[in-house]
Amino acid sequence: MSETLFSQHRDKLQAACEAIRTRAYWSGYPEVPSGKIYGETARKDGAAAFQGYCGSTFELDQPGAGGTVGSETSPFGLDLNIRYPQSDLASLVAAASDAQCGWRDVDLESRVGVCLEILERLNRRSFEMACAVMHTTGQGFMMAFQAGGPHAQDRGLEAVAYAYEELSRLPREAEWTKRVSKTDSITLRKTYRVVPRGIAAVVGCSTFPTWNSYPALFASLATGNAVIVKPHPGAILPLALTVRIARDVLREAGHDPNVVTLLADSPDAPRTRDLVTHPAVGIVDYTGGSAFGDWVEENARQAVVFTEKAGVNATILDSADDLKALTGNLAFSLCLYSGQMCTTPQNIFIPAGGITVGGEKLSFDDTANALIKAIDWLLSDPARGAEILGAIQNPATAARIEQAAQAGGTVLRASTPVVNEQFPDARVHSPLVLQVDASQTELFQKEMFGPICYLVKTADTAESIRLAAETARSCGALTSGVYTTDEATRAAAEQALINAGANISCNLVGPIYVNQAAAFSDYHVSGANPAGNATLTDAAFVTSRFRVVQSRSLVPAQG
Amino acid sequence: MSETLFSQHRDKLQAACEAIRTRAYWSGYPEVPSGKIYGETARKDGAAAFQGYCGSTFELDQPGAGGTVGSETSPFGLDLNIRYPQSDLASLVAAASDAQCGWRDVDLESRVGVCLEILERLNRRSFEMACAVMHTTGQGFMMAFQAGGPHAQDRGLEAVAYAYEELSRLPREAEWTKRVSKTDSITLRKTYRVVPRGIAAVVGCSTFPTWNSYPALFASLATGNAVIVKPHPGAILPLALTVRIARDVLREAGHDPNVVTLLADSPDAPRTRDLVTHPAVGIVDYTGGSAFGDWVEENARQAVVFTEKAGVNATILDSADDLKALTGNLAFSLCLYSGQMCTTPQNIFIPAGGITVGGEKLSFDDTANALIKAIDWLLSDPARGAEILGAIQNPATAARIEQAAQAGGTVLRASTPVVNEQFPDARVHSPLVLQVDASQTELFQKEMFGPICYLVKTADTAESIRLAAETARSCGALTSGVYTTDEATRAAAEQALINAGANISCNLVGPIYVNQAAAFSDYHVSGANPAGNATLTDAAFVTSRFRVVQSRSLVPAQG
Repeated sequence: MSETLFSQHRDKLQAACEAIRTRAYWSGYPEVPSGKIYGETARKDGAAAFQGYCGSTFELDQPGAGGTVGSETSPFGLDLNIRYPQSDLASLVAAASDAQCGWRDVDLESRVGVCLEILERLNRRSFEMACAVMHTTGQGFMMAFQAGGPHAQDRGLEAVAYAYEELSRLPREAEWTKRVSKTDSITLRKTYRVVPRGIAAVVGCSTFPTWNSYPALFASLATGNAVIVKPHPGAILPLALTVRIARDVLREAGHDPNVVTLLADSPDAPRTRDLVTHPAVGIVDYTGGSAFGDWVEENARQAVVFTEKAGVNATILDSADDLKALTGNLAFSLCLYSGQMCTTPQNIFIPAGGITVGGEKLSFDDTANALIKAIDWLLSDPARGAEILGAIQNPATAARIEQAAQAGGTVLRASTPVVNEQFPDARVHSPLVLQVDASQTELFQKEMFGPICYLVKTADTAESIRLAAETARSCGALTSGVYTTDEATRAAAEQALINAGANISCNLVGPIYVNQAAAFSDYHVSGANPAGNATLTDAAFVTSRFRVVQSRSLVPAQG
Repeated sequence: MSETLFSQHRDKLQAACEAIRTRAYWSGYPEVPSGKIYGETARKDGAAAFQGYCGSTFELDQPGAGGTVGSETSPFGLDLNIRYPQSDLASLVAAASDAQCGWRDVDLESRVGVCLEILERLNRRSFEMACAVMHTTGQGFMMAFQAGGPHAQDRGLEAVAYAYEELSRLPREAEWTKRVSKTDSITLRKTYRVVPRGIAAVVGCSTFPTWNSYPALFASLATGNAVIVKPHPGAILPLALTVRIARDVLREAGHDPNVVTLLADSPDAPRTRDLVTHPAVGIVDYTGGSAFGDWVEENARQAVVFTEKAGVNATILDSADDLKALTGNLAFSLCLYSGQMCTTPQNIFIPAGGITVGGEKLSFDDTANALIKAIDWLLSDPARGAEILGAIQNPATAARIEQAAQAGGTVLRASTPVVNEQFPDARVHSPLVLQVDASQTELFQKEMFGPICYLVKTADTAESIRLAAETARSCGALTSGVYTTDEATRAAAEQALINAGANISCNLVGPIYVNQAAAFSDYHVSGANPAGNATLTDAAFVTSRFRVVQSRSLVPAQG
């Protein structure tokens, strides 16, 4: 059965393997939420399935369940009231250990076949997943569909491709013949066994529960580990759905479903610390805030730990040919999902003397105004604004906007509540734009998660570059951007940011944004600054999830 | 120049890359210390060069040198009295940081060319290195030549091959074109830059200063890191020689020689703790005792840490066709380099009812006696005995033999001083063989480094397997062995030991020993038990020594 799954999905896997080598555009799952692709009733069916979860107990037949847990609230104001089975950690660990013994010995193709089938089924459920992601994270529908569905599935497939490439390159056996004298030789027959390092714990975040978890989930699964998924208590449903689908596929393919289990918890009784420090847990993947991420790195000493934490991303404005194209693109990046992406720019560095546009100087103030105008225009259409902004996932983020406005700097654009006509109770605030001086590092050299943006007035672009790189080095950065028509400035910015471990995007205009990282082509998180130690996805992300242990036997000499 | 080096050594690299895929027998450097291969005067020249170091100051033109350090003593009783320039850590770190900026930007082929040329020159100096290794570690000449020379070079080449495979697979750039509407598409040009994680610190051990350091040294170098080599104060010369040769090659190829530097220290003023916890150090490779290795893992939090520590290796005796072949092979493994290999068996598990030989039962006592007889025979020829035993590297090891004899169990074979006719002052002790009961785990379930062997009387082979696996799991194990003619017993032992992360050798007889791990074929240290977290060499050993940081730019649409 599992082998059949491998054959069924082999072409897609091979295309994915090719894509991670060339890093040209490729995608395994269609990103357009169209009935023509997903079925004419897919949207309605997905919404209905989601509605079915609300107000009920999510069915998940797994060990150690007693009582339920669940306290998700929709940033769009829906009444969710979903309860999840609460499994005790000891039972889950015991079940995962047992399951891993069998899973480890499943041949590579069968294991990978199961992973690919899970992804395929997740893909078919993308509308349902979109609703689950939207109403837990606050993403607008289109983003919830794409980032929560096909793009997350692509990231999962990418991890499977990396695991497959690394594991399929290992020989399973070898004959080793060494000449030991003029007439004699010795032969050893060697077998190499892949041993999982797990149990693997995947700790999800509240803003991108699937996109940021699938690489870890699928990399660990494909390399033979059992996985315990620990969703953020604010965004359980997307991962509960994922776990249920994974368990269905495992069971149908004849494997122990406890290869994948869910550890749901609540903010009052969090279980992450116990999970990630459990002696049986050998791999931890964590996405979330830096403070707790640092704690995980510090304390989960028995495990190999992969983290994506937070950063302070910079955009450097120097010069452009087309101001509108620049501000339009940047405004969208700032507004998208209300700045709640780990890739959103926070600090926009602008020289005090302004920038050069089409050969003419544009003052600092005019540059700032142009950017604010672009933001205002984007949000001027209520439907468009609602879709772009989504909603604020966490009330703490809304409170942070207030705090930032009070903390210092000049408010150039105040954050205002925005009405979402479809969801009147949605928590929506437009971006706050502050002007600060380059010397006010205490304000902008720290992460201010949410729709908060600092326009930093610098002496010149050289200072902008220096500050952007310094911030990346000390606070971490997942992305950076530069707008310049000068080749030497571009090269200098590139060199400085790359040396600080920040991926950089140059002169983006049109419908491609610094916030976006495409599977199979863009590395997400460099691992080379404090924003995290793991990259989605490179070889290092998979190679330490397994070990090779070998057996060798003397082959008796032929008479 | 560096590129020329790559062309010169390309064939060898390609053969090495092929070998790590097939894992069939291959070697890049001849292991026979023959004048026909290395030149008729090579032996004499090597000895003379070594003599030249004794009683003088080793020349090494590197930064921050002030005063000298050096307190090596020869286990064979030679008067070494070699002084090394003592560089201060801050100066070395500053120089390495500078050097790394240039080295990082050298193209892959040139970097790899330099690595291969260093290895080639090390190979030509193998006789000189043999003397250096012999008189610091106590290895007999043949082992010092092979393990210190060509086998270590093979391990270095293997690491270069892994690094080259991983890095050459990365595209340096890509064009990424995505259709965004029926008529339009967007193109990004992306470049991917390899960023070293270092500075890399390589901490050597006193018994295999080159073999255990070269994989780390060359893996870090090939991936763009500057390397600070910190030899064990008891075995500086082999690594000082290595560093000098590396610096010569770097300089001649037009690179900053400070890409490789030496931090020599003394037992009175050790520098390892400061080095491995230095904020600028991003990679630590450590080989040595478990206690300090645990400290390194615990404290070098700013770095990725690779360790090879110690283990307690087991051999399980169940049945054999040819007793003499078994005991001859095992006795050699126990005697070789006086048990000072991390791969030497310590515990020999024998059922109380004895073993089966050629279908007949052989009692526990007769089995023990046969093994002791084989040891005695090996050592009965003084020249052969001296060559096999070598000398005891550390007086603490000699003291441990005494302690073990007193601590408990029955002495079946006492350790006695052995006279080395060529070096009358050599510190040589024959193996101590103790009989213990399976219940005396406090005696044998800990590492007793040196020529100390426990024959553990078990209820049956099932108990032998259980205890061997349990010991590997709790104390670590780098190797294990089983002798059995029963296929089911072999499979059970294999399964149990592999699950405990111990590589296993089955029914070895003749001139191939459980202690030996061959580059390009055998993985050394599984990383799956407490004996260490790194494998020489697998993909995981190289992939986290570098990161990829990317830049992407919009390609303007064609008019």
